[in-house]
Amino acid sequence: MDYNFQPELIKKFIHEYKVKRVLIQLADGLKQYHQYFSKLLREYDVKPYFSGSHTWGGCDIAIDEARKIGVNTIIHVGHHGPVRVNIPPNMHVLFIPAYSNIDIKPCVLNAIGKIRGYRNIGLFSSIQHIHQFNVIKGLLEENGFKVYSSQSNDREMMYGQIIGCNLSAAIKVRDKVDLYISIAGGYFHGIGLALATGKRVLNIDPYTCKSFFLDKFLKKIIAQRLFYISKAIEAKSFGIIVSLKQGQFRINIAEKIKRKLLEINRNAEIIVFDEINPELLLNFDKFDAYINTACPRIAIDDVERFMKPVLNIGEVKYIFRGSVEDYSTIDAISY
Amino acid sequence: MDYNFQPELIKKFIHEYKVKRVLIQLADGLKQYHQYFSKLLREYDVKPYFSGSHTWGGCDIAIDEARKIGVNTIIHVGHHGPVRVNIPPNMHVLFIPAYSNIDIKPCVLNAIGKIRGYRNIGLFSSIQHIHQFNVIKGLLEENGFKVYSSQSNDREMMYGQIIGCNLSAAIKVRDKVDLYISIAGGYFHGIGLALATGKRVLNIDPYTCKSFFLDKFLKKIIAQRLFYISKAIEAKSFGIIVSLKQGQFRINIAEKIKRKLLEINRNAEIIVFDEINPELLLNFDKFDAYINTACPRIAIDDVERFMKPVLNIGEVKYIFRGSVEDYSTIDAISY
Repeated sequence: MDYNFQPELIKKFIHEYKVKRVLIQLADGLKQYHQYFSKLLREYDVKPYFSGSHTWGGCDIAIDEARKIGVNTIIHVGHHGPVRVNIPPNMHVLFIPAYSNIDIKPCVLNAIGKIRGYRNIGLFSSIQHIHQFNVIKGLLEENGFKVYSSQSNDREMMYGQIIGCNLSAAIKVRDKVDLYISIAGGYFHGIGLALATGKRVLNIDPYTCKSFFLDKFLKKIIAQRLFYISKAIEAKSFGIIVSLKQGQFRINIAEKIKRKLLEINRNAEIIVFDEINPELLLNFDKFDAYINTACPRIAIDDVERFMKPVLNIGEVKYIFRGSVEDYSTIDAISY
Repeated sequence: MDYNFQPELIKKFIHEYKVKRVLIQLADGLKQYHQYFSKLLREYDVKPYFSGSHTWGGCDIAIDEARKIGVNTIIHVGHHGPVRVNIPPNMHVLFIPAYSNIDIKPCVLNAIGKIRGYRNIGLFSSIQHIHQFNVIKGLLEENGFKVYSSQSNDREMMYGQIIGCNLSAAIKVRDKVDLYISIAGGYFHGIGLALATGKRVLNIDPYTCKSFFLDKFLKKIIAQRLFYISKAIEAKSFGIIVSLKQGQFRINIAEKIKRKLLEINRNAEIIVFDEINPELLLNFDKFDAYINTACPRIAIDDVERFMKPVLNIGEVKYIFRGSVEDYSTIDAISY
C-alpha cells in the first residue's frame, strides 16, 4: 500500500460512534483506493457509501451529501482537517491524512547538490509527507544548512505543513530564508510557496523523486497575472464567482466587490456554482472578466482553460487603482 | 428575442412575494440569455444571483443553492415545473418554460411529404413549442392525418408534452399510432419517444427546420444497450450510481439492487454524486460495470463517453436473468 490509511483510527472511530453506515470521501487522487475501504469496513460490518464528487481540500467536506443519504459519519481521506468549515455537532468526521509510505530521504539527498549556494532553508511539506519532516530537517542540517519552518495561523494544520491556499507558515519565516524547499507531489504546493513568499523554491516531488526550481513556472504565472489584470482593468462587465462549498463560500466579499464595481460604473453580476470549471463559465461568456471569490488556485492553476481574465480577491484592488504597478504575487492567492 | 420569457409573470411573482433578491436558474442552453434577466430585474430593483451549475431538467431545482445564499425565491427558466421534486413551503419557485418564438408551421409543412404513407400520427412536443401544439395538429389534420396525443401521468406536464425521462403520454396512445412526430430542438426528446414506444419517430427540429426519421439512431442505441448489458451480465463487481439531485435521488432502489447483487455473489458499492459525468466515474474504474439510478438519459446519451457498461434501473433484471433475450427498449429509460 502506497499510503498509511491508519486503519486503527478507523476502527476506533467506528466503535466510538457505533457506525453502521458511513460516507467515505477520498481526495481525487486517492479515490482509486476505494476498494481498500470497502474491504476494511466489511470486516466491521459497516456499510460504506462513496462520494463520487471532486474533493479538492479540507474546504470541501461532504456534509450535505452525508445528510442527504442519512448518515452522520464521514471518513475524509487525504487532508489534515477542516479548512474554514464548521462541522455541525451532529456530524462526525474522521480525517485520515493519507501519509505516504515513500521514503523521501534519497530524493532529498539527491536534491542537495542543487542548493549548495544557499544556507538558510525554509522547509515545508504537504500533509502526505509531514511525518518525515524531522528526518528531512536533520538531513539538511547534517549537510550544513540552517532550516526554518513554522506552523500556519490555522491551528488545525501541522508544523511545517502548507496547503494550496494557506502558506502563512512559510510567510512567517520569510525574512530568514534564502530558499524554500517544498516537499509534495506535483508542484501545486511549491507554486503556492513561491507566490506567497516571492522567493526561490526548490520543488521535491517524492513520487517521481525529481527536484527542480520553480523559477520558470513562477515567471509564467506572473506574466499571466499581469496580462489578465491589465485586461480586467479595461473590462466593462464582470461576473463574480461564488462557490457554494462551505469552506470557499465568500458571498459577502462578492457583494462588496459588486457594489464597488457598480460605483465605478462597471456592470457586475454574481454567479453561484457548486463546482466551478471553465466549461460552466462559458455559459456566461458575455462578461468581459471575472472575479473569483472561491478557491484562489482555480484562477491560477486553470488559467489556460479560461477564455477571459479571472482575477482573485487580492487582485481586485488593481482594477480600482487602474494600474498593475507594484503587483505582488501574494495577491494572486490572497482571499 | 428567441424566447418568450413571460416578463409579466416575473413582475407578478416579484410583487406577490415582495422579492428583493432572487436566484435565477436557467437551463443550460438558456444561460446565454442571463443579461435579459439582469436588465429586467434591475427595473424592479431586485438583486439577481445566477446559478452557474448545470440545470438539466425539472428534476434539478436549485433549492439548496437558494438556501445557501439566503434567498427564498427562484426563477427557474426552461422547464415546465418540478419533476419528482417537492418544493418546500418556504421556497417559492416561478417556472418560466421559455416558449420559443419560432413559427414551426413551415417546418411541419416541409416534413409532411416524408410521412405520406402513414395515417395515425402520435404528436408530441417539448415544452418550448407546446403553445403551437394545436396549430401543428390542425395542419396535420388538414393534410389528412389522424392525430393522437395525451397528457403525461405527471399532471404538472402539459397535454402533448414529453420530457427526456417521462414519455408516459406517448405510451398511452401507442396502440393507435403508426408513427410518432417529435417537435423539439435536437433529437433528445425524439429518442425518448422511440425508446419508450418502440415505434418509428419523425424528428422535427424547429431551430434548424430539419426533419428526419430516428431509425438509425435507435438501431445504434439498441446495439449499444445489448452489448453493454451482455458485458454487465459477466461483470463481477458493480458501482451503483446515486445522484443527490432531489428529483433523481433513488437511494432506496440503489440499496435494493446492491442487496440483490450481493445475493448472487457479485460485489457492489454505492457511489453518490452531486453531478455525474464519465470523468468522475473514472476515479472508480475498478468496477466492471455500473448501475445508474440517476437520470436514465445519462447512460444513453453519454454512452460513448463511458469506458464501462452503465445500465439503467430497468435493465438490471437482465443481469439476474443472465440473458438479454426479449430486451425491450422501454427498459432503457425505465426508472
